[in-house]
Amino acid sequence: MSMDHSLSLVDLRKRYLDGSLTPRAVFETIAERIAEYADHNIWIHTLSQAELEPYFMRLAQVDIAALPLYGIPFAIKDNIDLAGVPTTAACAEFSYTPERSAFVVQRLIDAGAIPVGKSNLDQFATGLVGTRSPWGACKNSFDPAMVSGGSSAGSAVSVALGMASFSLGTDTAGSGRVPACFNNLVGVKPSIGLLSASGMLPACRSLDCITIFALHCDDANALLAVAEGEDDSDAYSRVNPFANQSRHYGAWQGPLKIGVLAAEQLRFYDHDAYGDAYQLTIARLAATGVEFVELDFSPFIEAARLLYEGPWVAERYIATSPLIQENPEAMLAVTRKIISQGETATAVQGFLAQYRLKELRKAAESVMAGVDCLLTPTAGRPYSIEAVNADPITLNSNLGFYTNYMNLFDMAGVAVPTGFTDSGFPFGVTLIGKAFTDRRLLSIANRMQQCFQLPLGKGQGCFQQTGAAAVGDQQRISVAVCG
Amino acid sequence: MSMDHSLSLVDLRKRYLDGSLTPRAVFETIAERIAEYADHNIWIHTLSQAELEPYFMRLAQVDIAALPLYGIPFAIKDNIDLAGVPTTAACAEFSYTPERSAFVVQRLIDAGAIPVGKSNLDQFATGLVGTRSPWGACKNSFDPAMVSGGSSAGSAVSVALGMASFSLGTDTAGSGRVPACFNNLVGVKPSIGLLSASGMLPACRSLDCITIFALHCDDANALLAVAEGEDDSDAYSRVNPFANQSRHYGAWQGPLKIGVLAAEQLRFYDHDAYGDAYQLTIARLAATGVEFVELDFSPFIEAARLLYEGPWVAERYIATSPLIQENPEAMLAVTRKIISQGETATAVQGFLAQYRLKELRKAAESVMAGVDCLLTPTAGRPYSIEAVNADPITLNSNLGFYTNYMNLFDMAGVAVPTGFTDSGFPFGVTLIGKAFTDRRLLSIANRMQQCFQLPLGKGQGCFQQTGAAAVGDQQRISVAVCG
Repeated sequence: MSMDHSLSLVDLRKRYLDGSLTPRAVFETIAERIAEYADHNIWIHTLSQAELEPYFMRLAQVDIAALPLYGIPFAIKDNIDLAGVPTTAACAEFSYTPERSAFVVQRLIDAGAIPVGKSNLDQFATGLVGTRSPWGACKNSFDPAMVSGGSSAGSAVSVALGMASFSLGTDTAGSGRVPACFNNLVGVKPSIGLLSASGMLPACRSLDCITIFALHCDDANALLAVAEGEDDSDAYSRVNPFANQSRHYGAWQGPLKIGVLAAEQLRFYDHDAYGDAYQLTIARLAATGVEFVELDFSPFIEAARLLYEGPWVAERYIATSPLIQENPEAMLAVTRKIISQGETATAVQGFLAQYRLKELRKAAESVMAGVDCLLTPTAGRPYSIEAVNADPITLNSNLGFYTNYMNLFDMAGVAVPTGFTDSGFPFGVTLIGKAFTDRRLLSIANRMQQCFQLPLGKGQGCFQQTGAAAVGDQQRISVAVCG
Repeated sequence: MSMDHSLSLVDLRKRYLDGSLTPRAVFETIAERIAEYADHNIWIHTLSQAELEPYFMRLAQVDIAALPLYGIPFAIKDNIDLAGVPTTAACAEFSYTPERSAFVVQRLIDAGAIPVGKSNLDQFATGLVGTRSPWGACKNSFDPAMVSGGSSAGSAVSVALGMASFSLGTDTAGSGRVPACFNNLVGVKPSIGLLSASGMLPACRSLDCITIFALHCDDANALLAVAEGEDDSDAYSRVNPFANQSRHYGAWQGPLKIGVLAAEQLRFYDHDAYGDAYQLTIARLAATGVEFVELDFSPFIEAARLLYEGPWVAERYIATSPLIQENPEAMLAVTRKIISQGETATAVQGFLAQYRLKELRKAAESVMAGVDCLLTPTAGRPYSIEAVNADPITLNSNLGFYTNYMNLFDMAGVAVPTGFTDSGFPFGVTLIGKAFTDRRLLSIANRMQQCFQLPLGKGQGCFQQTGAAAVGDQQRISVAVCG
């Protein structure tokens, strides 16, 4: 398989259908890349030839056209179950081998996708850096001295470096967005419950989402369409309302009014390159006619602090019991320090925080009432692995400034690349809306990708409009209903 | 004013409009009745002539037709603020005098309603009996030896005995439904957030609702229409969706399929009279063509237990701080015993209970998926005041068997009278649906009132169809939307 072709769904499918490529050939190339980037600490487990064989055998017997994800390779963050393969959450002492795959994983496999392996993560999905793992700090796909972002570290880097067409991450505090930003990917943080969390090890059970990393929005929408669906076995699973169906992708084509932060609320932590990249993004979009309005970000900032300073850490404590009670030394020191705070929180503190959160959410929704979406930098700046090792908690917190509030507010987000710094490091923004605006956000993100025409991932081809999205000048459709 | 006329909104309005009655005359009659029933312990404060005067003066200057609640007298449970009058929550040491009326109270007053006074309640709205008050046990309107039901005790009894056209209660565990049942009233427990809770002293802030007691459903719908509305100052206030507007009252006229409990899940606590009254209710409705299907009530039962055995008691602890910390003796012993349990609950327990609740709610919604509503007895049996005094906690718990789960499940309910026992004590059922089915439930309750044609309250006239509801054979309206 030549490096001229990306692993994007459309590219791969075309070549499978015309017979110029087979899943076995794709996985041979992937195996070479896995070996080439072994020092990047991307994987906790990759499927052996013997483990892959049943997938190849099954696909050899089916009509390519009948399976929407025929032969599509994907990475699974190692806090999501794949039947018969250990789930470690980056803690060997905690690991277990599930009999069944996660609901979402099974849907993808049923549609023809093939798992490449289980990817490295910040232990127990607690972190936004990708360095907190006994399997080693996951290195950035653009600059191995820099963090990959986390906690879905390996999931992002594997797609950026062409070892998977897409990957599953998880996102409680920003883990499905920050690594997308640092590795030039689209990161979809769906509405809570749009993708079932059955078979995902919880971080904060009430806030967790399974997420999708993809090269572009067309792929992301196609993957969402396969992965989504109500699941009776997940109490947090929800029905996707009419206005957020797959077919609404591409339907948000009118003039855009987007909320942004006032200059004094932006944080780049002395990293001018990201500040400049953000300004260039805004200027370029404004030149295409996007109207920007400044919104007050302060309710979002206050809510973000609640996630780690408030009672929700008790959920992480629940998720890691009894390990944290019986064998706390098995946990990384930094992870243990954070999670053990959850033991002592009281229900009184919990309810007080929920009351405040309700107020903040109402304020945030009011702030966003007049705009198509909110747009922020996905992260204020990247850090080197060395810097994070020297100051693991403060720098990690900085990475959550634009992300920590999102699941507390029950909002949806799509991280999308919009440029590179002068030194060639990727930068991106996140589009934010209320729950079940996923397809609206993806549609707007797609328009941005069409505008910026950036390279995909790290050397995974250049963006080209694939034609999968509806185009035209459709506006919101108003329907008068009498009764 | 003759006792031949009820205080129902329609009756009063007709006589105000034809000039045969004035608000002053109505309040003279009410004052007589307040004196007559002084030993019932209905009121904590009634408005003096001087306090009433500004209301009369205002109404003298306006067009009767312009105010939908012109001159309508109403009672306010004394955990809801009326400007300038102390709010005690049935605890003198706790009381404060608010400068502003509660959002809902102000809307009613703006529409022309006149407050009669602040009504007695189980202290801090903790109880379903109406006996837990330093102002004395509130006596039942039909039998003074029996409990009124609580915690909205005085609010219910005042309407049943013709001292108010309607009243405001509150409902966290059943306080807006149980007293309706025991006093032959309609009790509307709206969806959480449909009526703003601003100016209501919280019991469990995340679950509380302000409720309406009325003589019949037409009144209740008219009152909801005035009282409802989103309130930015209440973080739990929610927008009423299209399908639950006032004009949808009366639109649920097709065949009915109603869920009921299997016989072995019903509880009447050895009170055959209520068991018989329930069976008669079902038989009568079945004879009119209502289809009944048996549903599994077990998820509801388990959720009900969570309310007092789980971490939500911490919310009651929050609501009564700092009194319970600094002056615990000021609280009734039974109330203090219950509420003080909330201090020690942990956030871990809180989240674990929330996870279980999510599962139970999903199961409950699945159980109810195929029916127009669920129907249960509103209470399993009434108790005498003497019996409750002898065993205040167990008997109170029994009264919550059919009610405690409702706000935890974010459901709506309407309690409606459906008969009397042989000894003449009222019995009723509650109709239950998901959030924002308020108008559907009220419509079905109205059809039941039309079917049963019972006397209203205690000697407040007989039910007659007022014609305010839309009638006809309207079914659900299906609208196809393309886009």
